[in-house]
Amino acid sequence: MDKVKIIPLGGLEQIGLNMTAIEYDNDIVVIDCGLGFPDNDMLGIDLVIPDVTYLKDNLSKVRGLFITHGHEDHIGAIPYVMKELPGVPVYGTTLTCGIIELKLKEFGLESVVELRQVTFGDTLVAGPLKVEYIRTNHSIVDAAALAIYTPQGIIIHTGDFKVDYTPVYGDAIDLQRFAELGHHGVLLLMSDSTNAERPGFTPSEKTLKHTFESLFLEHEEKRLIIATFASNVDRVQQIINTAQRFKRKVAVEGRSMNNIINTAIRLGRINIPEGLLVDIDTLNNLPPKDVCIITTGSQGESMAALSRMAMGIHKKIDIGPTDTVIFSSHPIPGNEKAVIKIVNELHKRRATVVIEDAHVSGHACQEEIKLIYALTSPKFAMPVHGEYKHRLANAGLARDLGIPSENIFMLNSGDVLEVTKDSCQVNGKVEAGYAYVDGLEITNAQNASLRDRQRLSEEGIVVISAVVDIEGKDLYSLPQVMDRGISITQEIDAKWAQEVGEKFTQSYYDCMEKGINQKTKLITELRNSVSSYIWSTMKKRPLVLIILEEL
Amino acid sequence: MDKVKIIPLGGLEQIGLNMTAIEYDNDIVVIDCGLGFPDNDMLGIDLVIPDVTYLKDNLSKVRGLFITHGHEDHIGAIPYVMKELPGVPVYGTTLTCGIIELKLKEFGLESVVELRQVTFGDTLVAGPLKVEYIRTNHSIVDAAALAIYTPQGIIIHTGDFKVDYTPVYGDAIDLQRFAELGHHGVLLLMSDSTNAERPGFTPSEKTLKHTFESLFLEHEEKRLIIATFASNVDRVQQIINTAQRFKRKVAVEGRSMNNIINTAIRLGRINIPEGLLVDIDTLNNLPPKDVCIITTGSQGESMAALSRMAMGIHKKIDIGPTDTVIFSSHPIPGNEKAVIKIVNELHKRRATVVIEDAHVSGHACQEEIKLIYALTSPKFAMPVHGEYKHRLANAGLARDLGIPSENIFMLNSGDVLEVTKDSCQVNGKVEAGYAYVDGLEITNAQNASLRDRQRLSEEGIVVISAVVDIEGKDLYSLPQVMDRGISITQEIDAKWAQEVGEKFTQSYYDCMEKGINQKTKLITELRNSVSSYIWSTMKKRPLVLIILEEL
Repeated sequence: MDKVKIIPLGGLEQIGLNMTAIEYDNDIVVIDCGLGFPDNDMLGIDLVIPDVTYLKDNLSKVRGLFITHGHEDHIGAIPYVMKELPGVPVYGTTLTCGIIELKLKEFGLESVVELRQVTFGDTLVAGPLKVEYIRTNHSIVDAAALAIYTPQGIIIHTGDFKVDYTPVYGDAIDLQRFAELGHHGVLLLMSDSTNAERPGFTPSEKTLKHTFESLFLEHEEKRLIIATFASNVDRVQQIINTAQRFKRKVAVEGRSMNNIINTAIRLGRINIPEGLLVDIDTLNNLPPKDVCIITTGSQGESMAALSRMAMGIHKKIDIGPTDTVIFSSHPIPGNEKAVIKIVNELHKRRATVVIEDAHVSGHACQEEIKLIYALTSPKFAMPVHGEYKHRLANAGLARDLGIPSENIFMLNSGDVLEVTKDSCQVNGKVEAGYAYVDGLEITNAQNASLRDRQRLSEEGIVVISAVVDIEGKDLYSLPQVMDRGISITQEIDAKWAQEVGEKFTQSYYDCMEKGINQKTKLITELRNSVSSYIWSTMKKRPLVLIILEEL
Repeated sequence: MDKVKIIPLGGLEQIGLNMTAIEYDNDIVVIDCGLGFPDNDMLGIDLVIPDVTYLKDNLSKVRGLFITHGHEDHIGAIPYVMKELPGVPVYGTTLTCGIIELKLKEFGLESVVELRQVTFGDTLVAGPLKVEYIRTNHSIVDAAALAIYTPQGIIIHTGDFKVDYTPVYGDAIDLQRFAELGHHGVLLLMSDSTNAERPGFTPSEKTLKHTFESLFLEHEEKRLIIATFASNVDRVQQIINTAQRFKRKVAVEGRSMNNIINTAIRLGRINIPEGLLVDIDTLNNLPPKDVCIITTGSQGESMAALSRMAMGIHKKIDIGPTDTVIFSSHPIPGNEKAVIKIVNELHKRRATVVIEDAHVSGHACQEEIKLIYALTSPKFAMPVHGEYKHRLANAGLARDLGIPSENIFMLNSGDVLEVTKDSCQVNGKVEAGYAYVDGLEITNAQNASLRDRQRLSEEGIVVISAVVDIEGKDLYSLPQVMDRGISITQEIDAKWAQEVGEKFTQSYYDCMEKGINQKTKLITELRNSVSSYIWSTMKKRPLVLIILEEL
């Protein structure tokens, strides 16, 4: 019997690019297809997505893309990736499919990608592999874990999850199913590591009911502006419930949030009383105490609605002393400075800002992670999701629960984990990792070069052009010198540019005298000479382009 | 009698650029001269420093630069700024002067800037103004608050401070002196706001003694690598003490830390037992359990020693499973991601990483801030240091202690606060804020343009050059097309470049036909036409430089 291969394709070094392939013989099922945002050194890059070279190379084997839930880091790369994987169906639960559909429409791909909606308990057959959807809880409705039945045994992937016994919508995570599978025998558990460093138990989403009630009470004379993730439908539901109780009208600000809320309403995943939701213009005619605005931008995203309010460039909402702004979120690492900037700006507009206590995590803490290990008692463990340090903490929990160290695997992107009933080991590596989206280009990050952009951004560029008569050892014209980005005072001294031109001319005649008349060599000489002149006068190393026109 | 003017020159919007001028009639004293690091959008900028235009314009009035302590955000801009303020003496306490001297030597300015060392209790006369140095505590030895005696009354500037009743070196903050001045009557208090959002009392530096002891015990078989701020001499002292107790040899890694420790040894600010400190080569011959390395890089700085160890490019230190790395620090907002990256890399090298509990803050929490307000009972308050939100929290504490709102001032850079015995108000504004250091250039940030760099970094550049015969409505040569940074795949298709050239040629002849022969107009037309072609083919908006050579 063949081995089962498990291959993380995108998401292990770069946060957000969740994508895992499970392969048996001639069949591959793929879990999730997430998107990430560029680091600061990825200049000009719009987005980061998984590198799906391996799937393209094995397209005939790919049976389906199985999505665990509707967050960007699990579905965001679908429009980019599925164009390269024609004919592969995409599976997901109700809200997940609703959000993917929105995305496909936006990209005009709704007729290209086949979306198949599943219900918890459904088992999809993909050749010798079967995929079962199991209900979990997370900071979005309709989140699922997947059980993948292989000829070697059962593999469970938790997706992002928490254990919420009292969720706002729907039922608690299906712990009984995890227990049944565990009783049956689980070969490998891939479990969410995001909060694996945190002891204890993540509080229920419903604990925020009291938080919101006391915030509404404490700020009862103020207009309330509450920022949260666009996709956290349950959070919005709770704010809506509290607003109704306190007789406030609600408006939703931010395109992505409006889209998702409308989808959730259509699919019955959120329940909004008739007449509660109004548009901003109507809201602006009401006194502050009757108003609640739910908005995007809780991570300090510079183009989101909250950021535009804070900077005073939102078309319809002016922030002032009668506002209380509540961040119902925690900043994701890397976003802290952007969030602080917005908080400062809100304070300067004399708004009250509440930044703590109005959030609970959507990820399992240590006791919940242990619970899933205990219920499923897997033979092998491969922590997923989160930074390396989080996955390592998850591995530590697995060890504490009695799984031997040699049965716990910390994988890198592209590593091939081969599993049988009795064995598990990393064997080989495929092309994987991340790819850049830059305008219309999509390129494997290893092949991409951002060096020129790095240099241009820090040092600028000088272009020197002249019409030359190499044979006659002369110049037809004085050189033209153009520069961009070298000096921060915008205008480089005309005098400096003239000196650079003179240096060029002098070097040109020097080269002629030395008999350097091969054009490539000549250009190299001229570039070196001009570059060192610029270093000595400006302490800058711009890109230097030399253009010699011959007639 | 004239009013006293207080002018924040650099540090209110941009963290780190602490610098305040206090002016009376024909005399100005300046407090601190700090440096900041560029934000991610300040492309190619090396450093950010205060804009001292106002001091240059009033140079004859400037009596001295009075430094509160030796941290970069209080002294770092001295080498850049003092060249522009010739003849102005710089005052500071023992270690502060020691560190400034290091810096001046590095810049070859030791004979240019006159450094005057002061002792706590000293009062310096600057015309009708007097400046008294008062001992405080902070995360560096020899930190001071300043009392500035003016004809209108006493102004106190706390500097960065905390209340540490049991400091590692020297005495506790001179609370009695604050009380005496309060009894005498304090006109205005400028107090550190960094931790004004945190309730309670910052623990003594000495509480870390137990923390280090238990860490040394817990990791007794491991080599210990402890990262902290280069300038935190007391922290280093405690690590040294613990190392001695546990019979480990110590090496100090990182240039800045070595410089500061050597200075502190020379000045008697740190006490290192004979034979304890060894060099790395010696250390490498000892078993892990006998070794302790104190290093820079606790903020994830990419060129610091710890980062080089984590990335495996440190010349003398290889990280492995026998290492425990302790972060004796908290990440400053904005550095979280860089720190996490290093933690992940250390984990990948199978080191143990300890990131919590081995740090206490150097700044006063709410109860300490209140204590200083209570002791000094100032008539007016102007919170300093920290983000806007921190200063606002400090203002809230001042209100809680009975200072009326209208007596509390939240200033912006350049605001002129005019104070008399009975009144205090913002009246006017001077040129201030921050300046960029870029290679040899120093430019007021308002005047600086980074737009070209921004565009170059994201979109790249295309240069098209041709020799033209405008009069004859012809081209002498085919256009040359060069590009940088447009495509991330490095090589733009030669075909694409050729098409851009063809588009240029076609547009050129179109212009000739339309009779566009004025060169500027012609270039504009050509640029627009090429730009829109590039947008339509690449979805990029690079800088387009058109060079027309005429013979």
